[in-house]
Amino acid sequence: MKKYCFGIDIGGTTVKCGLFDVKGELLEKWEIPTRTENNGSAILPDVADTIGDKIRERSLDRDEIAGIGLGVPGPVNEDGEIPGAVNLHWGYVHLVDQMERLTGLEVKAGNDANVAALGEMWKGGGAGCHNVVMVTLGTGVGGGIINNGQIVTGTNGAGGEIGHIHVTDSLTTPCNCGNTGCLEQVASATGITFLANRRLAADDKPSVLRSGEVSAKTVFDAVKAGDELAIEVAEEFGKYLGAALANVAGVVDPEVFVIGGGVSKAGEILLDFIKKNYRKYAFMACKDTAFALAELGNDAGIYGAAKLVL
Amino acid sequence: MKKYCFGIDIGGTTVKCGLFDVKGELLEKWEIPTRTENNGSAILPDVADTIGDKIRERSLDRDEIAGIGLGVPGPVNEDGEIPGAVNLHWGYVHLVDQMERLTGLEVKAGNDANVAALGEMWKGGGAGCHNVVMVTLGTGVGGGIINNGQIVTGTNGAGGEIGHIHVTDSLTTPCNCGNTGCLEQVASATGITFLANRRLAADDKPSVLRSGEVSAKTVFDAVKAGDELAIEVAEEFGKYLGAALANVAGVVDPEVFVIGGGVSKAGEILLDFIKKNYRKYAFMACKDTAFALAELGNDAGIYGAAKLVL
Repeated sequence: MKKYCFGIDIGGTTVKCGLFDVKGELLEKWEIPTRTENNGSAILPDVADTIGDKIRERSLDRDEIAGIGLGVPGPVNEDGEIPGAVNLHWGYVHLVDQMERLTGLEVKAGNDANVAALGEMWKGGGAGCHNVVMVTLGTGVGGGIINNGQIVTGTNGAGGEIGHIHVTDSLTTPCNCGNTGCLEQVASATGITFLANRRLAADDKPSVLRSGEVSAKTVFDAVKAGDELAIEVAEEFGKYLGAALANVAGVVDPEVFVIGGGVSKAGEILLDFIKKNYRKYAFMACKDTAFALAELGNDAGIYGAAKLVL
Repeated sequence: MKKYCFGIDIGGTTVKCGLFDVKGELLEKWEIPTRTENNGSAILPDVADTIGDKIRERSLDRDEIAGIGLGVPGPVNEDGEIPGAVNLHWGYVHLVDQMERLTGLEVKAGNDANVAALGEMWKGGGAGCHNVVMVTLGTGVGGGIINNGQIVTGTNGAGGEIGHIHVTDSLTTPCNCGNTGCLEQVASATGITFLANRRLAADDKPSVLRSGEVSAKTVFDAVKAGDELAIEVAEEFGKYLGAALANVAGVVDPEVFVIGGGVSKAGEILLDFIKKNYRKYAFMACKDTAFALAELGNDAGIYGAAKLVL
């Protein structure tokens, strides 16, 4: 009988590791550095080693281990391959095969944003739901779509890449992806800062944002303090994100949108600005879709990775 | 061993019926009228009767029948229930249960647009693919999403309702759905007519469209004849639809978009206007997604309904 599994979240600087029981209890978590040199050739062997060490340290029976789930920062197709390995600056292509050979355990892999969405569905803000859209508002805007409990990977591993939905023709500078007018440019932490600076430059309206640092955090702190200009910025952010999520609902019609990432630390007030605009644009059948804050923080990746093999 | 199945497409005026073998060969198709009076209380019994008649006429062994698939013009949830029965003006709620009771056969049901998408994936423009987005450009704009071979039904049965994606703030009249600026308002047959009339009214530029009827068909006929104003209209249509489908790709990342409905009779030239704009807005990993014309026409529904039970 299977009792345990490992959830591994491979990031650019650290690999987060979790040992779970099959009910989803996190028994232990730890980190190792991500050694990216030499096209990351040490990454998978390092992960295999730390898992081997943990098995020995805890005297786990290998037959009781359901497997290893891997979340990686790039597209992974349904065969566990990385079609655009260049995005990771790693040499790996057959991620699952190689990891299975290194460990002798069953391995499943997914894109980190998708895997985090699975984690939030399992034990976080989307618990109890089977159709979840997770939106991560950090430096960029990440997304993960769970339909009927399964990750929507997409043909090119680009399922859930909602940060690159086109939302406006009003921008002139391109997004990191090469297109112009992406959601990420106006709804990420960087995007909110951009919107705030653009609004500040438009006229002389007083605002606490005129003295001190302008960031997603200071904007939402100012919103909470009743700063009118900051509220205008939050409204604009909410319009772009709310309209984009309304369009996402017209495609996959989720039960809940889970909002995570650094920007989500602003709390419920952030959801208010998104929800109001979402309801304006959403198709009638989807106007009451729930919104929730993510609950697992940086652990969403290891939870979701573990769920991949259960 | 199962040898046969029925695919039934319930429309507003007729019920299309198909008898298939389990490999997907259409053995026979026929129609019966849809009796919508008395909240459509006769519809399911009529369907059960015509299936019973066919079984007797062909002396089919009931044990060899895999089941009955039903496509219906409204949202159907994953339990085979119609959450918003009012949309159909029918009294049915537990569609699958009632049909199983009437026939003693296994029944599956789905929304007609989703079921048509499944049909095109199985035997039409998306044959060989498992991730398909079907777009039906008719009086309205319908959509159906197939991910990993399964219909994306959505929590409220609104999966694939891409006709109501918000695409423009420039409209003042509301869509049938109550929102304003929906894709359907600018990319359906009616929408193309609207764009053409708006363009014609803007100035005095000569066009063959100034004499005679303005419709989606006459617009694309004029495009083929090199009419500059008609080409502008087609460009505008292509921009709205191409950008919307680019956003759909950022959510589910299909292998192919299958374009059907009356407007698609314009042929490959229609795809050219959509593809060019799609590529402009699509996320890099999805820029080369294929586009195909639907192939099954009005039979897509019976094919897809049959596939539901196989």
